[in-house]
Amino acid sequence: MSKKVTIIVFSGDLDKALAAFIIAQGAAASGFAVTMFFTFWGLNVVKKERVYSKGILKKMMNWMNRGAARRLALSKFHMLGMGTAMMKMFMKESKIPSLEEMIVTAKQLGVKMIACTTSIGMMGLSADSFIPEVDTLAGVTSYLGEAADAQINLFI
Amino acid sequence: MSKKVTIIVFSGDLDKALAAFIIAQGAAASGFAVTMFFTFWGLNVVKKERVYSKGILKKMMNWMNRGAARRLALSKFHMLGMGTAMMKMFMKESKIPSLEEMIVTAKQLGVKMIACTTSIGMMGLSADSFIPEVDTLAGVTSYLGEAADAQINLFI
Amino acid sequence: MSKKVTIIVFSGDLDKALAAFIIAQGAAASGFAVTMFFTFWGLNVVKKERVYSKGILKKMMNWMNRGAARRLALSKFHMLGMGTAMMKMFMKESKIPSLEEMIVTAKQLGVKMIACTTSIGMMGLSADSFIPEVDTLAGVTSYLGEAADAQINLFI
Repeated sequence: MSKKVTIIVFSGDLDKALAAFIIAQGAAASGFAVTMFFTFWGLNVVKKERVYSKGILKKMMNWMNRGAARRLALSKFHMLGMGTAMMKMFMKESKIPSLEEMIVTAKQLGVKMIACTTSIGMMGLSADSFIPEVDTLAGVTSYLGEAADAQINLFI
Repeated sequence: MSKKVTIIVFSGDLDKALAAFIIAQGAAASGFAVTMFFTFWGLNVVKKERVYSKGILKKMMNWMNRGAARRLALSKFHMLGMGTAMMKMFMKESKIPSLEEMIVTAKQLGVKMIACTTSIGMMGLSADSFIPEVDTLAGVTSYLGEAADAQINLFI
Repeated sequence: MSKKVTIIVFSGDLDKALAAFIIAQGAAASGFAVTMFFTFWGLNVVKKERVYSKGILKKMMNWMNRGAARRLALSKFHMLGMGTAMMKMFMKESKIPSLEEMIVTAKQLGVKMIACTTSIGMMGLSADSFIPEVDTLAGVTSYLGEAADAQINLFI
């Protein structure tokens, strides 16, 4: 049986999402079975660019908390976008793919991507808010089942 | 022997505390032995509403860094309390219990809660600063003992 | 074979760096083999006080994102340095060594310290940007190799 990695992606910061996908991609390429659980702000990483939500408050929440990999900001030095743009430049220079490209590659390498049912409601989202790379929705029991026999479990 | 989960709760943000308790509660309900170690800002999650501290600086620290589950704010979109209130509303709507209720349930399910001795001093707190759900104080050696034979170890 | 701990130090916040080294040091003292992987902002923890970088943008990045253990700030209540200074005072009072001292002790106890090759470029750094306690540079594959047979793997 191949070794396993699970990653809870709680954060919606660009830098943490990159770290998560660098590990996930690297692990999948090395033969690990990898599962990523997106929860809370981490749902933004796999959110569609346009999300329709019912109710004025959920609309507000989604307007403030706009997602999609392309739009994420750094946890530090975002500086109205300047810092984030600078890091994206350094990434290009170092030939590191963008987060959007990493998501596609991770999928091709067989990384399983799961959106957390419990936090979807809390973030004002619904089942159809996510990009097609997301395999399924599941809750904490499903996470525990995967993590209990994985060698590496991370919370990012 | 039952499988084990340990969670270091470093963060005092409402969203991260919720994530920690959703996992802890879920794991305990599924038969895992669960231990939570509260450290640094995470001590706020299990701090009493009123904490008495000696010395003007510790008083100041505790005034700025007021704890108790009920008072925690989101790591993002707190917006002077508006964002935090909005998420609490969504939680009610989705029938997700409040953090205070989760702490009580976790305890009933047998989750062990430990406050970290090393960081208590650093945060200007003392042994009697915590809610009764906290079982004991312990240091890093005790954490390592628990984590070394747990299947899932998280740092939140 | 001795038990193993790996810690990814992603954060460059003083409080999280302290948590990482308290665990690393405690584990090494208890006979665990410990490896720390510094990545993204965590590279600041093991950065030299002066770093020379080529190109105006990398110089700018390094000027904004100044590193070295001595200079790190708290993730909360930094308050232009006042909160950070206050916690450093509490640490002295509680006889907890400074982060700089912890790095030296960790090294003496045999903790392996690795700077992540992938993020060095993204942060505008190079191989000679680090303090001598850093053993080597390595990528995600090296991390996965270590973590796959470790008992405790944390992302901080």
